Amino acid sequence: MSALKLHGIVPPVVTPLTPDYQVDEVSLRKVIRHLIDNGVHGLFLLGSTSEVVFLNAKQRADAIRIALDEANGAVPAVCGVMDPTTDRVIENARQAKELGVDGLVVTSQFYPRTSQNETIVHFSMIREAVDLPIVAYDIPVCTQLKLSRETLMSMYEQKLICGLKDSSGDDGNMRMVMKDFEDKPDFSILTGSETTVDYALLGGAHGNVPGLGNVDPAGYVRLYEAAQRGDWDAARAEQERLIRVFQIVFQGVPHTSPNASGVGGFKTAMHLMGLISHRHMSRPNQLIPDAGVEKIRQILTETGLLH
Amino acid sequence: MSALKLHGIVPPVVTPLTPDYQVDEVSLRKVIRHLIDNGVHGLFLLGSTSEVVFLNAKQRADAIRIALDEANGAVPAVCGVMDPTTDRVIENARQAKELGVDGLVVTSQFYPRTSQNETIVHFSMIREAVDLPIVAYDIPVCTQLKLSRETLMSMYEQKLICGLKDSSGDDGNMRMVMKDFEDKPDFSILTGSETTVDYALLGGAHGNVPGLGNVDPAGYVRLYEAAQRGDWDAARAEQERLIRVFQIVFQGVPHTSPNASGVGGFKTAMHLMGLISHRHMSRPNQLIPDAGVEKIRQILTETGLLH
Amino acid sequence: MSALKLHGIVPPVVTPLTPDYQVDEVSLRKVIRHLIDNGVHGLFLLGSTSEVVFLNAKQRADAIRIALDEANGAVPAVCGVMDPTTDRVIENARQAKELGVDGLVVTSQFYPRTSQNETIVHFSMIREAVDLPIVAYDIPVCTQLKLSRETLMSMYEQKLICGLKDSSGDDGNMRMVMKDFEDKPDFSILTGSETTVDYALLGGAHGNVPGLGNVDPAGYVRLYEAAQRGDWDAARAEQERLIRVFQIVFQGVPHTSPNASGVGGFKTAMHLMGLISHRHMSRPNQLIPDAGVEKIRQILTETGLLH
Amino acid sequence: MSALKLHGIVPPVVTPLTPDYQVDEVSLRKVIRHLIDNGVHGLFLLGSTSEVVFLNAKQRADAIRIALDEANGAVPAVCGVMDPTTDRVIENARQAKELGVDGLVVTSQFYPRTSQNETIVHFSMIREAVDLPIVAYDIPVCTQLKLSRETLMSMYEQKLICGLKDSSGDDGNMRMVMKDFEDKPDFSILTGSETTVDYALLGGAHGNVPGLGNVDPAGYVRLYEAAQRGDWDAARAEQERLIRVFQIVFQGVPHTSPNASGVGGFKTAMHLMGLISHRHMSRPNQLIPDAGVEKIRQILTETGLLH
Repeated sequence: MSALKLHGIVPPVVTPLTPDYQVDEVSLRKVIRHLIDNGVHGLFLLGSTSEVVFLNAKQRADAIRIALDEANGAVPAVCGVMDPTTDRVIENARQAKELGVDGLVVTSQFYPRTSQNETIVHFSMIREAVDLPIVAYDIPVCTQLKLSRETLMSMYEQKLICGLKDSSGDDGNMRMVMKDFEDKPDFSILTGSETTVDYALLGGAHGNVPGLGNVDPAGYVRLYEAAQRGDWDAARAEQERLIRVFQIVFQGVPHTSPNASGVGGFKTAMHLMGLISHRHMSRPNQLIPDAGVEKIRQILTETGLLH
Repeated sequence: MSALKLHGIVPPVVTPLTPDYQVDEVSLRKVIRHLIDNGVHGLFLLGSTSEVVFLNAKQRADAIRIALDEANGAVPAVCGVMDPTTDRVIENARQAKELGVDGLVVTSQFYPRTSQNETIVHFSMIREAVDLPIVAYDIPVCTQLKLSRETLMSMYEQKLICGLKDSSGDDGNMRMVMKDFEDKPDFSILTGSETTVDYALLGGAHGNVPGLGNVDPAGYVRLYEAAQRGDWDAARAEQERLIRVFQIVFQGVPHTSPNASGVGGFKTAMHLMGLISHRHMSRPNQLIPDAGVEKIRQILTETGLLH
Repeated sequence: MSALKLHGIVPPVVTPLTPDYQVDEVSLRKVIRHLIDNGVHGLFLLGSTSEVVFLNAKQRADAIRIALDEANGAVPAVCGVMDPTTDRVIENARQAKELGVDGLVVTSQFYPRTSQNETIVHFSMIREAVDLPIVAYDIPVCTQLKLSRETLMSMYEQKLICGLKDSSGDDGNMRMVMKDFEDKPDFSILTGSETTVDYALLGGAHGNVPGLGNVDPAGYVRLYEAAQRGDWDAARAEQERLIRVFQIVFQGVPHTSPNASGVGGFKTAMHLMGLISHRHMSRPNQLIPDAGVEKIRQILTETGLLH
Repeated sequence: MSALKLHGIVPPVVTPLTPDYQVDEVSLRKVIRHLIDNGVHGLFLLGSTSEVVFLNAKQRADAIRIALDEANGAVPAVCGVMDPTTDRVIENARQAKELGVDGLVVTSQFYPRTSQNETIVHFSMIREAVDLPIVAYDIPVCTQLKLSRETLMSMYEQKLICGLKDSSGDDGNMRMVMKDFEDKPDFSILTGSETTVDYALLGGAHGNVPGLGNVDPAGYVRLYEAAQRGDWDAARAEQERLIRVFQIVFQGVPHTSPNASGVGGFKTAMHLMGLISHRHMSRPNQLIPDAGVEKIRQILTETGLLH
């Protein structure tokens, strides 16, 4: 496996959509520029925040092609290949490789009831089929399976994975994973949290994949840089401001689903900030209602992101 | 919505595979003949037991085309269109309609965290896009969302669904759903259970979608016919024999996953009985180990299915 | 272990309370007479429906003493001994034995995270300490642990248990347990369901522990007797009427908790029917609001229980 | 409510037992001295780690009396009053108050299915009955109910609670709770984690209730003091050493339950270190097997706690 060592702020790039639900090229280029100009260290294309499982092969290809073209190699770009089962993930992975991504981000299977051992087989088949570095993605709220400490170490030792994106919300277990891997310098661990990034960096995480980084990449970069220089007071202050911004994800429910409230919150904020032309998500996600939009506008104003 | 009122035994048809993981046409035709010749009342193509989420568009099309051709209209054939999100389900549904199925079987979304209300929107968009009757499929163990009584009634009243396949395992709730719909003669309710079919029929269910019906369709047809004529002693006796057969689904774990143990158990039995050429499932499902195969052979012998 | 083979309708007796939250002797005697006069086959004192974990040792003793005195040996009486851990259960069990109950009903531990193996040890210690027959009580919604088929069989073979009350709601698994025990005539299996009792009896269950049996014991006795004589049409018709009555348990939420809505529904109905003097539950359960009371009155009237 | 503002290291004191399962006074006094001499800032008597729900009223009274006597007012002592329901909690609370504790630690109800609103009523009844400050204890793994942000704020505003012990493992939500309460200087927030204490302190938590603090109070005090002076490198280094020690809790499973593995790990370590005379827990918890004891000895030796 060619080397890939992610670090720093690697946002899961939002996928802006046109009114007819295709990838909005103008907006996506603007988002990529916004992220790179604000100093992010990598791009995670087609993550959960990118509505990946809502997109078909063409839409996924469009999103990858446009993002890579706009990024032009400024930072490494990894790509989610989420689908329920192994060979369908491999189809996605082959397309992503052909389009030039630097690595894959892979979850366990979902919909079928799977197991830790089967997950290792799943990763090994993907690894065998497509010659790209793989970051394991632990997101049990979507997949129903938590990648165990033993599974992660076994996959590392079999050279199946080069890193972990932990979106499990279980910071205590992630801390122990970081200890398990402390003498494996070629393995990178990133937290998917938006609200405990200073924690993870204090604990030795190499980086962060914050959905909210689409809205405020500069904030997350400042947080990361403060942590890098050991200025934990500054890191915490930045994190606390970002927690205030993060409240934008709670303005849709109960009108919408948790998914539409979260990603919809990001898109609504980016639309208000002039970053994307439309704030709607893929079908059937419903728009955040007007009261929620106003609350998001207020949060952005109070936290200095909207003037 | 054109009328579709399913009843009786409607097995979720196993998808036999060739050594290179394509649809095994010869075996699939044999399975369809086996089912129809033994008196099943309908076919459920591309259910969870059919490994639907493991199959790509071409494989799904092959399975539908071959099955419909072999069935030749002898019984109605509905088709699962499972994928994580609405527009991808619609793509599957369009293909299925074009190939000539009589109805669709639709779950809630999965992977994204969804809600009851969003699920109603999801169904309404599919209904709008593809003019085919829709059976709601409640399988929370795979989707993480249980379709509530209120959601089912709302979807019926909006003319979105014409039936329910209940694979939730919650027979008490299903019983109340049957009461909720007792004066809706155009709505059909089928249980996805293998082991409480006599129960469901006693409670007024119109039919059954048993994965084990691939192995022993005649048994389930006898069970259904006994229930139809009110001979509950005969129905129970048949059910009890089928419960003994059903133990074939527990012979893989812990070696395999729950999914590979269950569907793998069916395929192993069908292979032993000479119905399909190969017993493997789609990747990454592992084969049931030899000891499990022997146990399955023993169960089939003891229950009169293998001589 | 002295023999105890429960069968038939064994309601979990509601515990009526005085305004100062003590056992209401007059009402409890009335309830016991109501049950026995209507033909129940046993009494389950201090079940979940009896608010057992809300009651201290004195209240539990009062409830047992009054109930046994009023029943006067007309039917066997078993007693729940629920508390979080082994030795506290044993204290409850000793008191219950001293007061003269015929058997104990025992759950796994709760609050501490336990396991199947530890549960077997838990039962064996109780069995060792108190010489009374034990019925295992499977209620994972309260305890977080489902008693597995293997655990039940192991406990039976070690002579720790003589029966099962299954309140798991998993009728498919319970069906397989009934098959597992089909050649053990000294083991009795009762369902805790209110809505699938005809199912369970068809499947071979020996009896039923219905909370709703406090409200309508005659209905459940008719159901049981119909099943005994193989008249499944009559059993189903009675069950369907009882399902309509059962809707009284849904009239409290969201105002109250699920527990207060369920047991509160029973108590409200019994109060409206003149069986108990007060309808409140132990603290902190809130009363079902007026609109719910009216709905309960309407349900009772429509189902012939109130005139 | 009289003021109580907990801070610093407040270990949940292990309850050493004699061979006949009574409170081992000599050992408990030794433990209390060990904690106070090593600088802890408070004592949490009768927490989950203290096996509280395994102890009857007399055992609980013994544990409180001995601990308070030995502590002699050196640090504040709060007391868990865990039992399934409100009035039984109040009985425990009255005894604890009479014995002289400084505050109560209260969970939601468990075993009955409860709700957020009912939990607020539960707390208000306890608050009304016993005049002692109350710390809310969020431990959904035991109670099945997570205290929501809204519930916590509502209870604070009604002057029902003066603090939170968060053992939910959801550090992201706890972080938002800390932001919610940032302008409430009379409310104290403590984490129940052993492995992310530096995180919580960085985020503004006032203290920590570490079960492992029984084994290594000096380590947690050093961690807290490093955080207090803003030396996050030192805090992290201490935390990382403590994570290595924490692996003692995984040496029992699968032989024992998760509870017996965790608390049993602490007791085994304390026995090896000469702090308590016996390492067994209350029944039915099984001893950690010899191989686990050896592993614990090795961990203690490698981390400098055993020589």
